[in-house]
Amino acid sequence: MAIWLDQRSEDFEARFSAFLSTKREVSDDVNAVVRGIIDDVRLRGDAALFDYSARFDGVDLATAGLRVSDADIDAAVAATDPEVLEALKLAAERIEKHHARQMPKDDIYEDALGVGLGSRWTAVEAVGLYVPGGTASYPSSVLMNALPAKVAGVPRVVMVVPASGGAINPTVLAAARIAGVTEIYRVGGAQAIAALAYGTETIAPVAKIVGPGNAYVAAAKRQVFGQVGIDMIAGPSEVLIIADGDNDPDWIAADLLAQAEHDEGAQSILITDDRAFGEAVEQAVERQLTRLSRSRTAARSWADFGAIILVGDFSAAVPLADRIAAEHLELAVAEPDALINRIRNAGAIFVGRHTPEVIGDYVGGSNHVLPTARSARFSSGLSVLDYVKRTSILRLGPDQLAALAPAAITLANSEGLDAHARSVSIRLNRGG
Amino acid sequence: MAIWLDQRSEDFEARFSAFLSTKREVSDDVNAVVRGIIDDVRLRGDAALFDYSARFDGVDLATAGLRVSDADIDAAVAATDPEVLEALKLAAERIEKHHARQMPKDDIYEDALGVGLGSRWTAVEAVGLYVPGGTASYPSSVLMNALPAKVAGVPRVVMVVPASGGAINPTVLAAARIAGVTEIYRVGGAQAIAALAYGTETIAPVAKIVGPGNAYVAAAKRQVFGQVGIDMIAGPSEVLIIADGDNDPDWIAADLLAQAEHDEGAQSILITDDRAFGEAVEQAVERQLTRLSRSRTAARSWADFGAIILVGDFSAAVPLADRIAAEHLELAVAEPDALINRIRNAGAIFVGRHTPEVIGDYVGGSNHVLPTARSARFSSGLSVLDYVKRTSILRLGPDQLAALAPAAITLANSEGLDAHARSVSIRLNRGG
Repeated sequence: MAIWLDQRSEDFEARFSAFLSTKREVSDDVNAVVRGIIDDVRLRGDAALFDYSARFDGVDLATAGLRVSDADIDAAVAATDPEVLEALKLAAERIEKHHARQMPKDDIYEDALGVGLGSRWTAVEAVGLYVPGGTASYPSSVLMNALPAKVAGVPRVVMVVPASGGAINPTVLAAARIAGVTEIYRVGGAQAIAALAYGTETIAPVAKIVGPGNAYVAAAKRQVFGQVGIDMIAGPSEVLIIADGDNDPDWIAADLLAQAEHDEGAQSILITDDRAFGEAVEQAVERQLTRLSRSRTAARSWADFGAIILVGDFSAAVPLADRIAAEHLELAVAEPDALINRIRNAGAIFVGRHTPEVIGDYVGGSNHVLPTARSARFSSGLSVLDYVKRTSILRLGPDQLAALAPAAITLANSEGLDAHARSVSIRLNRGG
Repeated sequence: MAIWLDQRSEDFEARFSAFLSTKREVSDDVNAVVRGIIDDVRLRGDAALFDYSARFDGVDLATAGLRVSDADIDAAVAATDPEVLEALKLAAERIEKHHARQMPKDDIYEDALGVGLGSRWTAVEAVGLYVPGGTASYPSSVLMNALPAKVAGVPRVVMVVPASGGAINPTVLAAARIAGVTEIYRVGGAQAIAALAYGTETIAPVAKIVGPGNAYVAAAKRQVFGQVGIDMIAGPSEVLIIADGDNDPDWIAADLLAQAEHDEGAQSILITDDRAFGEAVEQAVERQLTRLSRSRTAARSWADFGAIILVGDFSAAVPLADRIAAEHLELAVAEPDALINRIRNAGAIFVGRHTPEVIGDYVGGSNHVLPTARSARFSSGLSVLDYVKRTSILRLGPDQLAALAPAAITLANSEGLDAHARSVSIRLNRGG
């Protein structure tokens, strides 16, 4: 049973605030262990990777090989259901097309004074993509993380994935090939992050590491940040559905459960203006729960973090949605356009009754790596922008320098920075 | 004396690698102290701010007031040298004009299937700007941090600045007014960061915190990250100058010293193909050093971290520059255009002999908040993009859902996510 909150009740603000600040993750303090692993990989390189892989993944890399060969990938592609391959290709094509539109353009120009200014974008030179092992090893995530790097023009896209018990999900390898990953290594955990950040004999270091992982991987990413760039540290997934009473309760229940089945810490929230509809959805959730293979996870998530919020009208939902700042926001209402532009904070918005969030997980074309835990208030989903960086360009000749020098010298002096002032003044009234 | 490295010598790679990995910052572990301050501000709000400000800044906020009033700002503007005011206004105008070009455009479109896709950009709703007290309190940094927020359309731009001994640099307040800062509070340190992140009775919380600060401020920003967004944690400044023998050694020496005077941990590097020129620059540095008010800081920086690197030709400088990935890169060579597009990693490039980096610190128009410590390999300088976030939009009707459903269902099933598959399949062959 999810909790119910009624926006018109007196204690709503207190209960909603408490609901918003509920922690959905227990993060073990694994920092010391991770620090030791990183130091060891820096010291011993490949040998350390071999040891940890034997211990944690039960794989003998001396036999299996650290690098996944082209032949291994060929075999994985051959072992993948052709229907799945086709679906991955359709997804990849749509993701690539959409992300190509995100590529920022250089902007090099001269202003009225003749000063040359510019923003130049270049791809990060090498990116590492972490892919978890076991059941959290999602081919769709390989596409979502690797394709924007390909679109950005990153020359080296390196994937690491643990071979738990010696095996890697073949569909993950097939997805990597489709997504243009250039190197794949059989290694996971903090040791894989260390290898990507600092390099070993076999794995050359990268400049940025992306992709989801467990507590060890997340801690390792935080620790190597600075040495390399990292993407956001994603928390459990969440959906907010704003729905009127004209929806089929079963559709909305299915959408709530699609989030809930991800993780016990996932969160599914319904905002509706219709109590009877909310009750019908709740009943539909209970019915559908029994038929899911991951019903235990979904039931736990729904019971612990699910919520149904009643509002007087959908205008009242806008500030609530902005405070929830959901990773995924579905607008299953008659006139979604009236709401879209009033809501500021959401990772992605799914518009209308025929856009279940799941389409965005796979084949919509937009990215499914989105800001969780209210971070849509200040951050964005993964995009091509995460794989490029901007260099400012400034170009003055003697005339432009003469025009701007007095103000620069005045400001440098006012800040007490003599050498700054001198670096400009020394160039005045001189040849060049 | 800076170190000399000769790219053609046998031990160059070893020495250059060691040089690159030299740490230029001693970071005290202040995490426990900062954790206590943050918890206290969350618990006691304004009262905690009053206590810490009395203890650390020697200011009685009960008398001075936490919020800086409009009258205070009027007085600060009146107390600012009119020439400095004019220079700030010129700088602001140029910064605003340049940054306006960075504003990303929404991209809402329909693809060939009729699927509606979109990237919508919205401003962060409230931003906090930290400004250090004392000598590190730079009006130019107020402009550089606040103006992109104004251009992005951030409704609330909140500045915090410690009133060390009761006083705030009036030029900083004048710069805040010019830059469109909407609220200013007399508070600094970890307590100010806590107030911005969690709010107090007087200070409403923000969604993102930017701006430089000491070790306590940096630690506090790391600790509140997640609750709010933060900008990069900037390290000591650095410049790389690639210069041929046709430069005036005094000009180049002045530019090296303009970085060095910032901080003992700052770094100034010259790459040249002309040993005699390098020696002349070195002598010019020694000469100019004696005349600087911050000569002690500059001398320390140059002695500990300065370097002159000799190369056979400037092609050989390209990979070195990419590994150094300097915050500031000056190209003081006869044909800078031959180099610009070959160098991938740099925060900002200053082109030609008449573009000293200092122009970019103040009045060039580009931002002076740039990636330090080799992070230009994976990150960019501050821009309008740091104050906006992107929401993905996806919109399907029944036909589009029918077209994409089979692939989505196939992928959901292949990932073992029943409820995902069901959320799509339940909408097929039904009304809506």
